[in-house]
Amino acid sequence: MTNYTPPVQDMLFVLDNVVGLASVPEHPDLGKLDADSVASILEPAADLASNVLASINHSGDKDGTKLKEGVVTTAGGFKDAYRQYCEGGWNAVVFDQTHGGQGLPWLVAFAVQEMWQGANMSFGLCPLLNQGAVEAIEAHASEDLKHTYLPKMISGEWTGTMNLTEPQAGSDLAAVTTKAKRDSNGFRIFGQKIFITYGEHDFTDNIIHLVLARIEGAPEGVKGISLFIVPKFLQDGSRNDVLCTGIEHKLGIHASPTCTMQFGDVTGDRGGAVGYLVGAENEGLKYMFTMMNNARLSVGLQGVAIAERSYQHALAYARDRVQGASLSKKDAAKKDTARVTISHHADVKRMLLSMASQVEAGRALAYEAALCLDLAKAGDVAARAKVDLLTPLVKSWCTDMSVEVASTGVQIHGGMGFIEETGAAQYYRDARILPIYEGTNGIQSADLVFRKILRDKGEALKVYLKEFEAVLGDLKSAKGDDLETIHAQLKMCYEAVGKASQHLGVLAAEDMEYAAAVSVPYLRGLAGGAAGLMMARSALAAQELLSSAEGDPVFLNKKILHARFFAESHLPIATAAAQSVLTSARTIVAAEF
Amino acid sequence: MTNYTPPVQDMLFVLDNVVGLASVPEHPDLGKLDADSVASILEPAADLASNVLASINHSGDKDGTKLKEGVVTTAGGFKDAYRQYCEGGWNAVVFDQTHGGQGLPWLVAFAVQEMWQGANMSFGLCPLLNQGAVEAIEAHASEDLKHTYLPKMISGEWTGTMNLTEPQAGSDLAAVTTKAKRDSNGFRIFGQKIFITYGEHDFTDNIIHLVLARIEGAPEGVKGISLFIVPKFLQDGSRNDVLCTGIEHKLGIHASPTCTMQFGDVTGDRGGAVGYLVGAENEGLKYMFTMMNNARLSVGLQGVAIAERSYQHALAYARDRVQGASLSKKDAAKKDTARVTISHHADVKRMLLSMASQVEAGRALAYEAALCLDLAKAGDVAARAKVDLLTPLVKSWCTDMSVEVASTGVQIHGGMGFIEETGAAQYYRDARILPIYEGTNGIQSADLVFRKILRDKGEALKVYLKEFEAVLGDLKSAKGDDLETIHAQLKMCYEAVGKASQHLGVLAAEDMEYAAAVSVPYLRGLAGGAAGLMMARSALAAQELLSSAEGDPVFLNKKILHARFFAESHLPIATAAAQSVLTSARTIVAAEF
Repeated sequence: MTNYTPPVQDMLFVLDNVVGLASVPEHPDLGKLDADSVASILEPAADLASNVLASINHSGDKDGTKLKEGVVTTAGGFKDAYRQYCEGGWNAVVFDQTHGGQGLPWLVAFAVQEMWQGANMSFGLCPLLNQGAVEAIEAHASEDLKHTYLPKMISGEWTGTMNLTEPQAGSDLAAVTTKAKRDSNGFRIFGQKIFITYGEHDFTDNIIHLVLARIEGAPEGVKGISLFIVPKFLQDGSRNDVLCTGIEHKLGIHASPTCTMQFGDVTGDRGGAVGYLVGAENEGLKYMFTMMNNARLSVGLQGVAIAERSYQHALAYARDRVQGASLSKKDAAKKDTARVTISHHADVKRMLLSMASQVEAGRALAYEAALCLDLAKAGDVAARAKVDLLTPLVKSWCTDMSVEVASTGVQIHGGMGFIEETGAAQYYRDARILPIYEGTNGIQSADLVFRKILRDKGEALKVYLKEFEAVLGDLKSAKGDDLETIHAQLKMCYEAVGKASQHLGVLAAEDMEYAAAVSVPYLRGLAGGAAGLMMARSALAAQELLSSAEGDPVFLNKKILHARFFAESHLPIATAAAQSVLTSARTIVAAEF
Repeated sequence: MTNYTPPVQDMLFVLDNVVGLASVPEHPDLGKLDADSVASILEPAADLASNVLASINHSGDKDGTKLKEGVVTTAGGFKDAYRQYCEGGWNAVVFDQTHGGQGLPWLVAFAVQEMWQGANMSFGLCPLLNQGAVEAIEAHASEDLKHTYLPKMISGEWTGTMNLTEPQAGSDLAAVTTKAKRDSNGFRIFGQKIFITYGEHDFTDNIIHLVLARIEGAPEGVKGISLFIVPKFLQDGSRNDVLCTGIEHKLGIHASPTCTMQFGDVTGDRGGAVGYLVGAENEGLKYMFTMMNNARLSVGLQGVAIAERSYQHALAYARDRVQGASLSKKDAAKKDTARVTISHHADVKRMLLSMASQVEAGRALAYEAALCLDLAKAGDVAARAKVDLLTPLVKSWCTDMSVEVASTGVQIHGGMGFIEETGAAQYYRDARILPIYEGTNGIQSADLVFRKILRDKGEALKVYLKEFEAVLGDLKSAKGDDLETIHAQLKMCYEAVGKASQHLGVLAAEDMEYAAAVSVPYLRGLAGGAAGLMMARSALAAQELLSSAEGDPVFLNKKILHARFFAESHLPIATAAAQSVLTSARTIVAAEF
């Protein structure tokens, strides 16, 4: 009932035909990757995802996690699933080979990671947070710290966490008050962190916390925050002064423990949690952003994954549930009053199309960002600028989309969708965290407008918009009604985004608050356009394969149809959002609450 | 933390200034109602809603209902709240005076009912279903049955239920298989009904089930369904052969028992549940629709109510939560880095505006339909046609809106929104049933397109669209930038809806399936436009009061600002939906799943 089959064919199409495996830099051992070599990586991952992780997703939601005297017990099957995941080498996929990683390109890793998140988002959060921790250590810690922590965090023997939020410091990290006191051997950490994903669990023997704290005497605000490694167990095997004091009762992701972590003063006389400074003092926030940026893309990918799962669930129900007769002229002429599965009813088709097309658009957009990560890692400056621009789009658009898609998934089930045993409601609950964590979508929009558009006076945007022009040109010279329709809608969105971008500069010059007021509609316009651009590229790729008689024509024609639906039904919403940037800033700022 | 204050000032503004109490027919005892007399009704209702019902909303969600051996125990405080509700005479508000009702106009009753639903939707469902049952009996049952059941169902001593759905018969009621066998005294009912709201509970001594069943030998399909009264206890005090055999574990409305009801064969030898035929044989579905239509408006009203509650919750949090400094030029110039409540941040203002303006639009639209009910009851044929047209709009638009608003309410809370104790998540879960029950929003759209638009060749629509023209004229001759902006957006939407309506006829002539394919986007276009029309009327009314120096200028200017925001940010979405009607039918029908 809650089956999940990773959509390998769809993934390979995006990887190879839309985004382009050909562009990925060569792997030192594996050489140039192609569809076949990638398929041989994806197939066993799909096996683990569907047979092990997916089957404990619903039971994990029901059972949740338990806390007793600082010890968290995860739901049935999770610990064993983690073992299998590590044994398969999956935890090491994306990390640098220096410390035991496999160094696979991000583009391929994204497809693999989508499977974990689609199979079991509560499970997938553990490696997601570990990845951020590994990256921060790789990029900023001393060789000594790297040597001590990275190999086991990469193999999965230990896991990493990110400790940012405090009760008074959520979006506003400048308000962090956790203290780091100097002692003879380094630092002792004192403070409380909340909302710490997998802050405590029973998967592994040790947990490596990355903690933002303020060294005594450091400047106020964001310039006085440092990053520390705080392991649960120290190198000598003794327990560090850090304890999980609570787990949250949440709307969703019940199988993922969301912990309150107390650093210091837990054991009374041990005098604070031993912490090891990562990099330089007072550079913590910058380091945290290094890892948070990739985590933001991964959260966008979670949106794609859970939306795909919700779609598969709804599709299976729609193909099974018999209700009402066909309305079509053909059947009416035959006086055929036989009841059909609801997948035959036009409005259910509309809902399924809406789900499928948005999932595909989100996947293509997220994978495109992953390719940019690979290129940026190889030194491509333009790719770095592009992924910086795309990160808030992927995080926001894919996560907002996932909430909408999961809601439509519930709707397709009718009354059964509201019954927890059906499983569709879990996705609706789970997905709701995605627009909130790793920087709310409001924060993403501010990041887009202030850091990615206004700071460089729209330079990176200008380069990106040229991609629209190129694709619009391709669409124009392509044949057929479908691509013509896609062209018309994409062009309108492109033009609206262009005007909105201009206007953003005007607003910001007048008052930053005006730019902030329209940041979300602006992001929705640009991101919806970017998603439409990827769907246009998908349709162009499908048509090219069709015209050269390559590939499965049923599959490829479906891609074109989905792209057309997206253009007709979703692009206009993006266009409308971009247009509202032109008029609504003053209205919003004028409101008083 | 989960306080709710019924928005009496907003309600009175809509009742008196936007919809118009002056248009309501005179009440036999109370005479002509005005703002003061209505306020004297609303104030004590608000008192009960906020002090009794609202305070058990969150605990009811946590505790849920319990079933043991056919007996349902409701959550703590609910039984007592129901007693207070009946003692206050609130159950009788809207019913005909003949059997003990108060005969208040629907327009006023809607404001009262919004309060119950806003305070506690799980509670409010009991009277909502009872109302439908009373109406069906009032309209179609014999005098004898009316005399037996109505007085106690109107006072609240007994409650009524609606038993339609069966496992194989959800949207497709033609598939009902529950049987009615003739016996010497009437009928015996055999069958299983699912999803029966308050099918069993501990509020009252008796429960009166209205049940759709098929008399032996009746025609197949919708033409062979009859409506029966099946009381839990018979007149002689003996228990009828009907039993609650299960309650559902649901996403939301946990305090409302959703029952599986077994009619007949429960007690072994009693030979079926005694049922009393309502009206004529085989007319059951028609009768059920009598009551379902008003229930659909009431569900739309539930959407308004829970959205209002979610808004109040988010607003209170935004006014309390301190995070980050102001971005405004004024504060930047002062180098004011003091942290502010998030209600000062532009993007939070945008979210609050989005919530408030949609709630107001939904309220005005639902109350407008209520006025039409009053006029129709007094014999106004045009008002009947208008409320028939508005019913699917109110049900769909207000319920879709409630899901979006409740989701935004969670978002404003950031991470805290995902924590169940905060309370915001409950609205997100509770609201999700609204687009599903009393006819899914897909069914509403089919009702709109096939029964309300195509059947009379667009006559009722044409009359309704003239209201747009009149308001557009008023906006055009009014002064100021706000009304000009509203005019521009409403005009675009009106034109798009006009074209979409034309195209709907073309599509239907070709193949009904095409019309079905775009029924939801068409409804979204028309309903969004209708909501925008009400907001335009709200702004015009506010401006008129302002120019004659009547009323509270802060309140009235806020109404204009909210109407402008709605026009800038929500009307374009409706316009886009209407436009998509022109192109997407073929795409949707071409899809195969």
